Amino acid sequence: MKKRAVVLLSGGLDSATCMAMAKDQNREVYALTVLYGQRHAAELEAARNLACLFQANEHRLVSVELGQFGGSALTEDLPVPKDGKPSEGRIPITYVPARNTVFLSLALAWAEVLNADEIWIGVNAVDYSGYPDCRPEFLEAFQKLATLATRTGVEENRTPQLIAPLLHWSKARIIQEGTRLGVPYERTSTCYDPDPSGRACGQCDACLLRRQGFEGAGIPDPTLYSGGAPDSS
Amino acid sequence: MKKRAVVLLSGGLDSATCMAMAKDQNREVYALTVLYGQRHAAELEAARNLACLFQANEHRLVSVELGQFGGSALTEDLPVPKDGKPSEGRIPITYVPARNTVFLSLALAWAEVLNADEIWIGVNAVDYSGYPDCRPEFLEAFQKLATLATRTGVEENRTPQLIAPLLHWSKARIIQEGTRLGVPYERTSTCYDPDPSGRACGQCDACLLRRQGFEGAGIPDPTLYSGGAPDSS
Repeated sequence: MKKRAVVLLSGGLDSATCMAMAKDQNREVYALTVLYGQRHAAELEAARNLACLFQANEHRLVSVELGQFGGSALTEDLPVPKDGKPSEGRIPITYVPARNTVFLSLALAWAEVLNADEIWIGVNAVDYSGYPDCRPEFLEAFQKLATLATRTGVEENRTPQLIAPLLHWSKARIIQEGTRLGVPYERTSTCYDPDPSGRACGQCDACLLRRQGFEGAGIPDPTLYSGGAPDSS
Repeated sequence: MKKRAVVLLSGGLDSATCMAMAKDQNREVYALTVLYGQRHAAELEAARNLACLFQANEHRLVSVELGQFGGSALTEDLPVPKDGKPSEGRIPITYVPARNTVFLSLALAWAEVLNADEIWIGVNAVDYSGYPDCRPEFLEAFQKLATLATRTGVEENRTPQLIAPLLHWSKARIIQEGTRLGVPYERTSTCYDPDPSGRACGQCDACLLRRQGFEGAGIPDPTLYSGGAPDSS
């Protein structure tokens, strides 16, 4: 019998790859997209396309207004840093407080109702932006919590397992694997500050990591940039 | 300087008491009510009144449609059990999957933005309905997670502390303490299945625990019941 998996699908490069891997590993996929007051709708459009393309059994959207709490350039009208290099040594302003904790909680709620075996999340601790909730120790703590928080954990000693297949991968390796599995990266959305038509800025942390990933993978970058292809750095 | 606390305020008896205790202990209170697709609006009305009465600095509402996942009599059109005694030895159908995990995640997000010292939650492991996410080990696991999940936890080794003052109290003791602190219990909402005017059914698990609590406390039960005061059992 196929394993059943809730897959967190933001519409970005990592979650798209994660989704493709779940399908490749023969999972029955339930895609979950959390709308949390992002400033841009491009991710949602990308998530819809990807859920359809990879034949999710269901694609559920959940709205939760994290934006009302403020504290992040991704949900508030604060400038997204474009200083030409990824943040190092500090947590950047694009961090959304407790985002992955909220995402995983919602995935856990659905997984429990579905009796799902797994929760897949495309977090990455290598080429990431320095977010605390993208680290292995965070995922381990959530796994522990899930066991204690759920009916199945308590009554049947059975809890959905967190699967984070990209955790220790470089962006280049993620792109190579996704390309092999047919991920249409031109239809994924990564930029923190896209223009109104959804084209990427090419300058924010997320764009920089993505561009470097394609370079490292030796695969042409299919991303549509608002000012044309940026110079390689 | 006053400690700053996010207080989860459902509008029920326990959270109302928790709120009163936070104020009594001189906290600067930020009340958070999560609207999760409950079948009844009585709790929300109660929460608004309580936030006002106890002079919360702010009262925030967050909507998150847990109801769409199903799996609970509190969010779906399933019958609420009224078999005359609280559930024992199994987790009842009124359990909402991962509810407290979601609630605490949202409280953590706000607490992080507010730079709050504490998160107060009125969970109770004694006279509770058998929910897995009302147990001390669940709270400990969430505290651990919070430390790893937040910017302040990582950069400043400082995380909001979970405070669950009712965890080991009987319902009777909760009611005695709340009465001392002026909680207007006639304006709190506990029933899982109130009538359209908000009056309690007197028969569901939550009503039974509440009634027994007032009896045990030796305090007259001010609750408005839809069929008049039920017989003592």
